[in-house]
Order: sequence, then C-alpha cells, then structure tokens
Amino acid sequence: MNKKTHKVHKTNGVNGNSFSVNGFDGNGFKGISVHHVSARVPVSAAKLKARRQRWNVRASEMSKNTLNPIRAIVDGMKLTPNPEKPMIALSIGDPTVFGNLPTDDSVLQAMKDAIDSHKFNGYAPSVGTLQIYHNNEKINSVVFCLQDVILTSGCSQAIELAISALCNPGDNILVPCPGFSLYKTLAVSVGVQVKFYNLLPEKSWEVDLQHLESLIDDRTTCLIVNNPSNPCGSVFTKEHLRNILAVASRHCIPILADEIYGDMVFPSCEFHSLANLSSDVPILSCGGLAKRWLVPGWRMGWILIHDRNNIFGSEIREALVKLSQRILGACTVVQGALESILNNTQAEFYQSTIGFLKSNSEICFAELSTVPGLNPVMPSGAMYLMVGIEMEHFPEFQNDVDFTERLVTEQSVFCLPATAFEYPNFFRIVVTVPEEMMVEACGRIREFCARHYRPLSQESNDLDQ
Amino acid sequence: MNKKTHKVHKTNGVNGNSFSVNGFDGNGFKGISVHHVSARVPVSAAKLKARRQRWNVRASEMSKNTLNPIRAIVDGMKLTPNPEKPMIALSIGDPTVFGNLPTDDSVLQAMKDAIDSHKFNGYAPSVGTLQIYHNNEKINSVVFCLQDVILTSGCSQAIELAISALCNPGDNILVPCPGFSLYKTLAVSVGVQVKFYNLLPEKSWEVDLQHLESLIDDRTTCLIVNNPSNPCGSVFTKEHLRNILAVASRHCIPILADEIYGDMVFPSCEFHSLANLSSDVPILSCGGLAKRWLVPGWRMGWILIHDRNNIFGSEIREALVKLSQRILGACTVVQGALESILNNTQAEFYQSTIGFLKSNSEICFAELSTVPGLNPVMPSGAMYLMVGIEMEHFPEFQNDVDFTERLVTEQSVFCLPATAFEYPNFFRIVVTVPEEMMVEACGRIREFCARHYRPLSQESNDLDQ
Repeated sequence: MNKKTHKVHKTNGVNGNSFSVNGFDGNGFKGISVHHVSARVPVSAAKLKARRQRWNVRASEMSKNTLNPIRAIVDGMKLTPNPEKPMIALSIGDPTVFGNLPTDDSVLQAMKDAIDSHKFNGYAPSVGTLQIYHNNEKINSVVFCLQDVILTSGCSQAIELAISALCNPGDNILVPCPGFSLYKTLAVSVGVQVKFYNLLPEKSWEVDLQHLESLIDDRTTCLIVNNPSNPCGSVFTKEHLRNILAVASRHCIPILADEIYGDMVFPSCEFHSLANLSSDVPILSCGGLAKRWLVPGWRMGWILIHDRNNIFGSEIREALVKLSQRILGACTVVQGALESILNNTQAEFYQSTIGFLKSNSEICFAELSTVPGLNPVMPSGAMYLMVGIEMEHFPEFQNDVDFTERLVTEQSVFCLPATAFEYPNFFRIVVTVPEEMMVEACGRIREFCARHYRPLSQESNDLDQ
Repeated sequence: MNKKTHKVHKTNGVNGNSFSVNGFDGNGFKGISVHHVSARVPVSAAKLKARRQRWNVRASEMSKNTLNPIRAIVDGMKLTPNPEKPMIALSIGDPTVFGNLPTDDSVLQAMKDAIDSHKFNGYAPSVGTLQIYHNNEKINSVVFCLQDVILTSGCSQAIELAISALCNPGDNILVPCPGFSLYKTLAVSVGVQVKFYNLLPEKSWEVDLQHLESLIDDRTTCLIVNNPSNPCGSVFTKEHLRNILAVASRHCIPILADEIYGDMVFPSCEFHSLANLSSDVPILSCGGLAKRWLVPGWRMGWILIHDRNNIFGSEIREALVKLSQRILGACTVVQGALESILNNTQAEFYQSTIGFLKSNSEICFAELSTVPGLNPVMPSGAMYLMVGIEMEHFPEFQNDVDFTERLVTEQSVFCLPATAFEYPNFFRIVVTVPEEMMVEACGRIREFCARHYRPLSQESNDLDQ
C-alpha cells in the first residue's frame, strides 16, 4: 500500500487553507477567489513531505473512549448453559422479548393512522412536532409547554443532549450507584468525568445524601436522578426527593431527571415527578414511550425543560435546540402518533402491566428471600429487582460475575451481575418474564445456592483442614 | 439565588473521587468501600470554598460550536413577501411538503405489515437488524454484507458516526464547495477542521482535483464525496470518480461517500457507487430511504463499510459499532419494513419520481437560461438546480443574500442563497415543487431580473454621473 506522489501538483492551497478557517460569515467575496481563481503555486517540499505516504487509518479517541460496561462484562463471561435445562434469561431489559407484554392496540392503531394520513413522511422540526400542543396542556401526568419540549430519538438521546448542553470536558456529573450504565458511557465519551453517589439498599435504595454532597465540587455541572430506578426498581418518596433537591439547591447544581419509568410504580406507592417538587432548582426531565408503552424500539423520547427563576434562561434552551439540529430525532410517524398515544391509551393497559410486574416481583422476592445467602430487595416500580449475595457464604466464587457465570453453567439461568452497574456482589433480575419462567428460575437459583452455600462456622473448619 | 452551605457535611468524598476514575474493570472489591464504608471525614475548608455559591448554568462549548449556516443566514434575512403575490418557497429540501410526490403505497404497506407483525416493538441491535441479510445480497443496487452494514437514525447519523470514527479534534476533513452544510456543522462541533475543495460549475460541478489535492496535509483523515450532489444536482462520470479515487489513493485518505441521492439520476446519465470503482481506497458509503423513497422524516439511514486490503480492518468496524451503542439508531418499525421496502418497491415508482424531477429541472433551466444576468446550471440528478448571478449586472445588490431577500420582498419567491453552502453569488432552486408553481416562480424571477438588470456599459455611464 506504500504509495508516492510522482509529480508536483500545481495548486492554490493557500486559498484552501485560509478558506477552511472561515466561519459562516456569509461574506460572498472572500469565497469568490477560492471558487474561480486557480493560481499556479507549486507545492512546497515541506508540504509534500507532510503528506501521508502509506495507509494508516486509526479509530478516533472518542470511539476508544466509548465504553459499554454491560458488554465489557458479559462478553468476558463464559456463558455456556447446562444442556439439560432450557436457558432462562432474566438479564434482558426489554419487556417485549417474551411476547407476554404486548403494547396496547390503540398504540399500534395510532401508528397506522399516522401512516394513512400521509402527513408524517417529511422532515419535522429538529425539536419535534409536539410544539403544536397548547401551552401547559397536561397529557398523562406530563405537562408539555410550548418551546419547553424537545422530542428525541429515544430517552438515550434526551440524556445525551442534556449532558452535552450542560457539560464541558473536565466537568463532572453525579450519577447514582448502582445506576444505568449509559450515563457514564455518554459522559466519558465526551470527556466528562463521572462521580458515583451511593444508593442505600438498607433504605430501599434511597440516596446517601451525605455522600452525594461530599462529591460536589466547582466542576460539578449536573446531578442525575433516576426515579423510578434501573436497576433497583426503587421509587423515591416525596420527602426524599425534596431532600435531594435541597442538596442541589445548596450547591446550585441543575438536575437531569431520568424519569423513563415515570408512573410505572406499584399501587402501594406514588410517583412524583421531580420538577413538580422543585421551586428553585432547574430541571431537565427526560422520558419517553419505551417502558410505559412497551415500545422501546420505537425510539421516542423527550426532554421537558423545567426552568426556575430563569436560571436556564434562553441560553440552555438554545443550546438544546442547536444540539438537536446535529441529528434529527424521532421518526415522524411515531411523532405523528404521539398525541393519540398519550391521550388515548386506556388506564387499564397501564394497570395490567403494573399489576403483572408487581405480582412477578412478589413471587421472585418471596422465593429468594427464603434462600440462605441471598438478600433480595423488594422493588416498588420499574421492571427490576436487585438481589444481594452474601459472598462470604459462597467461598467458591470470587464475586458476582463468578457467581452469575456459574449460575448459567449449572442452572441455565442468566442474571446480570451488578458489577455492570458499578455495584458488585448483587445481581439484577428483570421481572418482565412470564410467571412460570420466573417461578422455574427462582427454583433453580434456590437449588444453585443450596449446593454452594457454606455457613461461616463450616467455612472456618474447612480452613483448619 | 445566592445560597451558602450552613453546616459542615461529614463525608467520604475521597472514595467518591477515587471511584469516579475507575474504569469498567469489574473489580468488585474496589467498589465495596464506596458502597458500604461511610467514613466521617469533615470537608476541608478548601473544598467547601471550591463549591459553587450561586447559580451560574452555562451552555457547553460544544453547543456553542454547533452552527447551522442555513439558519444563521436565513434568520438574518428580512423575508416579508409581497402581499399581492402568494409565497412560493423554492428553498425547502423536503420533497413531501407540497403533496405532489407521495411515497409508494407498497412502502406504507410495508410499515403497516411491520406494525401488525408485533415483531418490531423491542430493541434492535445497535447496528440494526439488516444484519440478517445473507452475505453480499444485492438489494436495489446496494450491496449489503454481513457485519458491513450499520443502520442509523437517518443519513445524518451515518455521516456523524463516520466522522466521529475517523477523526480526532485537530484533524481536518475535505468537503465539497458548494456542499451540504451538515458536514461542517458536525465536524466543527467536535473540533474537526473543515477544508473546502472547489467544484467547477463550468465543468458541470466536477471536482477541481488540483485544488482538492493541494488541501491535503498529514492531519487530513477523511475526504467527503457527495454524489449526486446537494446543492448542485450534478452526477459524476465513472472517469471523474476514478480521478477522485486516484487522489485519495495517492495520499492514503479514506473516503466518506455521501450517496443519499444514489440512483436519483436522470435517464441521460448513470449513477456509479464510488465503492464499486475502488480497488484500494476504503470507503464508508452513507445512504438512506429519505430521498429516493421520499420519506425523509422516517430517519432510516445506513453506513456500508467497504474495506479494501484490510485498511479499516477490525479497528474502524469496532469504532463504528461502539459509537452506534451511544444512541440506538433507527425506529424498529422502519427497520422491520426495510427489507420489503428495498425489495418490493416497483421500478415505476422511481421512474416517475425521476421523470418529474427531470421535467421540472428542464422547465426551470429553459426559463432561467434566457434571463439576462442569470446562469443556471442544468442538473443531472437529485432535486436541485444552482443558478449563478452575474452580480456586476445587479449593482443594487451586494450579494446573493441581498438578491434573494429582495426577490421575496418583490415577488414572494424564496430561493436559498448559496452563501448557505459557502458558495456566494449563486442561489439554489429545489425542483420538487408542482410544475405550475415552478413555471409561475420562474416567470416572477424573470420579471425581477428584468427590473434590476443593468448592462455594464450602462453601469459605467452611471459611474460618470
């Protein structure tokens, strides 16, 4: 592939170089020379020398800094199931995979109506078409205001736009631990540092407020609050949310509220959108259709801009609008269906989904809480349940990755080790699987633990031998 | 908003800081301390001092560096149409706005079938589901190979991923002038410099190869070739494409081929995909459904990885895959419909679209080529026609922005000044408007030019007065 330049090329490289640094100044005449002059200036030897003589195409630093912790861990595991037992995956955060949780027919009909209308094939504004809503119209517990809504390609893009608008390289953001790994993936890939604040399993995963506050410094530009939580399935009380707001308020840190599981809470408790409780902390609320409407593949997300005291002002709004213009967001067909989906989905649909998730969670919790060596934490919402492993009782295994790997080898049950959420010695169970599968899986986990559990006294004896 | 911290907070900030710099090493025990220890270390005065005492939320540098030249120019124009004449917008690059170019019914049916199948509501792989295709299956002149296809949220995301995978801040890319403004918008927002190589109107917008070559230096990491061209409507011959490949080959520069208008060429000429002509230059071909299938809002794009001699190798493939995991791409319903759309759209549909574009282009060209002071360039494909303005004959106007602004004021016809494409003293006409609208618009442009045209002799007399 080693090539050489065989002749000296006559060029007007100067124009090219100077022009390349022009801004969008719209100055016609500066451009002209580039287009129509073609001066005959031989290329300097230095310049020729500077040119590449052989192929050497390298991946960018950004791509190298784009890390997917779940992939990184799962790809490193030996996941060979027991051939005698059919595989049960409790690891997949996609409620649609088993077919037991279809979306509502009215949601599908809304899409077909949008298609038949022939009105949603063209470009939408970069911030989406929800702009057509009236001011402060309340839809499904979500208040949409004119110019306060940005539709995005899934909640992931909403989170990316929010981080990209608020943070510069070298800044840091505060994210929950355990927490959804995408926050770190997105932040690190753009040079933003991540600081993990602890959630406390013994307090149903409430935030360790002292630890949270201790992490704040003058480069902290965003606090991410995920409620209801993936992977914990926890739902914060109004009081706890107020305490979190108080910390943000004391240190003047805006909040990114990841509320993609908003309203997916069990009847026993209530979901409070953080923005409804904030009087002085500006909030970017991120949400979408993915989980509550069971269509994660449709990539329909949104940012709701909840400014307070004009702290975001026009600057952050404009930043979000500008960034939204880089890549146009959600598919227009879904945008066209959105109003109908938000307005016409029947309450029964949400209730039956939540009822199923609660029932499955209770089955799983009841089963595993009687298994020696395991400490499941009962969720209050979302689709997940976290289980603590008393590693000292499982001396054969080094950590949660070991533990879950062997669980696959022996019982063909796969749970995601919580190291994937930067939270070792726990594993996450997705409770969207069909009930019989959940029951069977819990039975196998019990069998697995029974075989490998060692009482501490027993263990010390082993050591004496 | 000026707040103070009223008490000293007991913290374990050290853990928080140290943990925040951990990678995804899956080491359980490093994490433990963060989760379960809560040392009581008072915050140092320095640290407290470092914390923010007042609200000061600023937009990121990236958002400030995200520039949209078309918006920047159009927003600066006084666009008040003549109340006596209905507005005709020849500026909108969206073929669906006038309803005269609907997509094919088979395309809409493919979407409804995907919805009814209930199979496309869940997450797709980050690189999309086209992976299911057999190796080298040829669909509609596009060759899809296993693990060589990445589906994206529109061709814009395809271009963004390609640039992000190949370029680091400080590198430069070569882009056509005049050219689609998104290349610069995306590059500049991530710190990549843009160098414009000239297209030559007198040679049907072929590349000025000497100028192109003169711009290459050792930080040049990508050459963007857009064929067929927006805004020129030009289509390169096989010979010219080979000459461009020769330059890339001599200097070992990979190519990003933006072929979103691929196959949208008039019967008189032929479209050649750059990758089919390249023996030694690796190419990322970007395309999508937007233009040829007339559904730009659906956001279905793709990157076809055409490696040569393993120059991209696994490194660039992996970089693209990693970057695709940051934000999941295209809506799964469209992904589910894609195979059918590519396979089952009838040739008649493409032919009638192209026939209409050609006829409208010919009407527009014929009309404007007889207008003193204007130099239209007949396109061979895509949806655009560029018109040169002999500014010296229109002394009232400073440049193309002035000219097009007054055209709105007097004739209620809006054409995009080519300064928006970094190419002054031209304007772009979109030829997708209904024929009668095109005829009317051309008539008004003629009238406008007749009123403002000044012969040069006349002009010099003016100067004597």
